[in-house]
Amino acid sequence: MEAEVLATGDEIRSGALVDSNSAHISQKLEETGISVVRHSCVGDDSDILTTILKEIGSRTDICVVTGGLGPTSDDLTSESAAKAAGVELAINKNALSSVEEFFKARKRLYSPSNKKQAMLPKGSECLFNPVGSAPGFSLKIDKCLFFFLPGVPPEMRRMLSDKVLPRIEKLTRKTKIYCQNRTISTFGLTEAAVNEKLTGFPDLFKELKLGLRANFPVIQVKLYGTVEDENYLNELLNKASDWISQKIGKRIVSLNGNSMEKVVGDFLVQKNATIAVAESCTGGLISHLFTNIAGSSNFFLFSGVTYSNKSKIKILGVSSSTLEKYGAVHEETAKEMAKGAQRISGATYGLSTTGIAGPDGGTENKPVGTICIGLATPDTVLAHRFHFSSFNRLMNKKIFAITALDLLRKDLLDFSK
Amino acid sequence: MEAEVLATGDEIRSGALVDSNSAHISQKLEETGISVVRHSCVGDDSDILTTILKEIGSRTDICVVTGGLGPTSDDLTSESAAKAAGVELAINKNALSSVEEFFKARKRLYSPSNKKQAMLPKGSECLFNPVGSAPGFSLKIDKCLFFFLPGVPPEMRRMLSDKVLPRIEKLTRKTKIYCQNRTISTFGLTEAAVNEKLTGFPDLFKELKLGLRANFPVIQVKLYGTVEDENYLNELLNKASDWISQKIGKRIVSLNGNSMEKVVGDFLVQKNATIAVAESCTGGLISHLFTNIAGSSNFFLFSGVTYSNKSKIKILGVSSSTLEKYGAVHEETAKEMAKGAQRISGATYGLSTTGIAGPDGGTENKPVGTICIGLATPDTVLAHRFHFSSFNRLMNKKIFAITALDLLRKDLLDFSK
Repeated sequence: MEAEVLATGDEIRSGALVDSNSAHISQKLEETGISVVRHSCVGDDSDILTTILKEIGSRTDICVVTGGLGPTSDDLTSESAAKAAGVELAINKNALSSVEEFFKARKRLYSPSNKKQAMLPKGSECLFNPVGSAPGFSLKIDKCLFFFLPGVPPEMRRMLSDKVLPRIEKLTRKTKIYCQNRTISTFGLTEAAVNEKLTGFPDLFKELKLGLRANFPVIQVKLYGTVEDENYLNELLNKASDWISQKIGKRIVSLNGNSMEKVVGDFLVQKNATIAVAESCTGGLISHLFTNIAGSSNFFLFSGVTYSNKSKIKILGVSSSTLEKYGAVHEETAKEMAKGAQRISGATYGLSTTGIAGPDGGTENKPVGTICIGLATPDTVLAHRFHFSSFNRLMNKKIFAITALDLLRKDLLDFSK
Repeated sequence: MEAEVLATGDEIRSGALVDSNSAHISQKLEETGISVVRHSCVGDDSDILTTILKEIGSRTDICVVTGGLGPTSDDLTSESAAKAAGVELAINKNALSSVEEFFKARKRLYSPSNKKQAMLPKGSECLFNPVGSAPGFSLKIDKCLFFFLPGVPPEMRRMLSDKVLPRIEKLTRKTKIYCQNRTISTFGLTEAAVNEKLTGFPDLFKELKLGLRANFPVIQVKLYGTVEDENYLNELLNKASDWISQKIGKRIVSLNGNSMEKVVGDFLVQKNATIAVAESCTGGLISHLFTNIAGSSNFFLFSGVTYSNKSKIKILGVSSSTLEKYGAVHEETAKEMAKGAQRISGATYGLSTTGIAGPDGGTENKPVGTICIGLATPDTVLAHRFHFSSFNRLMNKKIFAITALDLLRKDLLDFSK
């Protein structure tokens, strides 16, 4: 069974926006055992859209289309799909109640243009959208079954996994094949270095496919397996994970794709410990990462984003003589910041960052990309200095934050042994 | 003159890699005044590649193709282009010297498989690659002029700007067309509501195209213009921006696409003011947003991410009786938090958030999505309560943070009048 993916919208066509939806959909379809043959993208033009839907309809089995289901006049997907299938548009009851429910649940004003979203081609089946106002739909055009989804990534992803993939799996059920993938997160090696460490994998695990994916600054190792026996597949994936663990060692963050902050949070909860943070150059990012985890109040007590020297002294109790003697970006300052955060919050651990995220503010001795990280544990206080070579402020903030969390992770890992 | 873009390679086809090349190429072509009609992507399969090259050759004027020019056996672009054009492959002298030069300059080993990279379809013109080993080429297939470039982004970008765009500009010189787009950021209205307020735009500004884009929780209005007179286009875009300003009013965040945090930061710098933040439910996100701006140390002094009640009392000086009487999520608590942040940092403004981001922790009176925001100005302290209906923790954090920043923005806006 073959598939195609179609992205619609002037933003993507004109290059104002990079289309990440098509990659996500292709990956998911391939994991289901369906071969994706072609991606296409066209703009908000009803004639062009109708033409390409007909083309795809004449040559493939399944197509997932994104975009153009909104309430505005440049949302032309339903209209074009109806034309391509040679049917009329009509109010679809399920779609209407889906749209109405969305607005009712959110106590938002329901405008006449939202009603347009419930106009679907006759003969199509409504796909309920649990996270947005635009319902999707499926429709056969020529020999191909089309699934039309919104272009907003979280809505598309949710509907793809809840509505589309289960239906496609049913269609292919006669030759039931178990597909699974596993994600292993690593930090501290480049993509090329991870790749080199895993040389020999294809010969040892012929039935699995291995791919690397950079989710900056974390490198994810992805394993894909497609075999007929589910237990055998699980065993195979476990063996492969073990093999990879041995090759990468402590630089494995998680064997299940969990993020660095989630791994650290779980460790802290496990040992009934708490954390407080003092952030200078990471500017709140470490706290933001921690508090993205539901239940983070169980281990995260406080963060002081002390951007100015004055706030380092006043809030964290860093001594002004340390700042004078060493400057803000220094191991000694980092230590005092970490101890300060630990002391004022009563947390088990204190973690601190002070550095230069750029693009400006670097000096010869402390160039952009320099960071000092302090870690106050129940027994001691340590500090480390690193230098990263990027001038991109946001990338530096990210790698600073993850490096700090990784230091804490390694400390907790040693302790838990 | 119309164009298409074609990406090749199994990595992109299977979704292992997001294709950012096509967006870049489209943007550059559109800036040259050429309308990009369609993007496509196929994998490393010579038959499929030949088919799509013929298809594109039969329907458009210009096509930029990326990928498949490397030395390995799955690099099939030259071979497929030759088949589609009905010509043979042959060593191209310029391509050969380009490849040889690359290896000589880098003192790298030149392998026989690299010679494959100099085999181009007869009749094609070599495009020198100054940054990589794979030369590109241009070739007419049917009625379309194709430009074949490597898939490695920096190589593709350099060759596009040095070799391809100047040639295309020559072809189109007689009808030079100016393209521009403008982004207007709004906050506080749904996409449908913005759309309704802008009804009538297409009739008033026939030469411009308007599109909406949700960049949650901000809605961006995008204007695209393509006319022959550059001054006229600028005037037109200014007029359209004014018209939109009148329709949307204070909910316009910026007329140049600037983010909420950048607009607030600029306002603060303008009036020589500073800000300190006390974050509970936004967990550091407001600080993270502020400190993403280069130069934020000019206005951002401190943020206390006070997740626990204890830290609200100890760090910010919130009174324990207020917390007992009203609870953590309350206007009174928000006020004391904002005042506390302002007082301990000496900032001009103090901004605070306390609420329930979810997915758990809601009660009947204070359901998930409730937030109280406090704003301490030089003269007074105010607090507001809002309720948003999402149960998604990260989405709530985002809308909480932007709502808090928007309150400050409106205060600064009133002041600056």
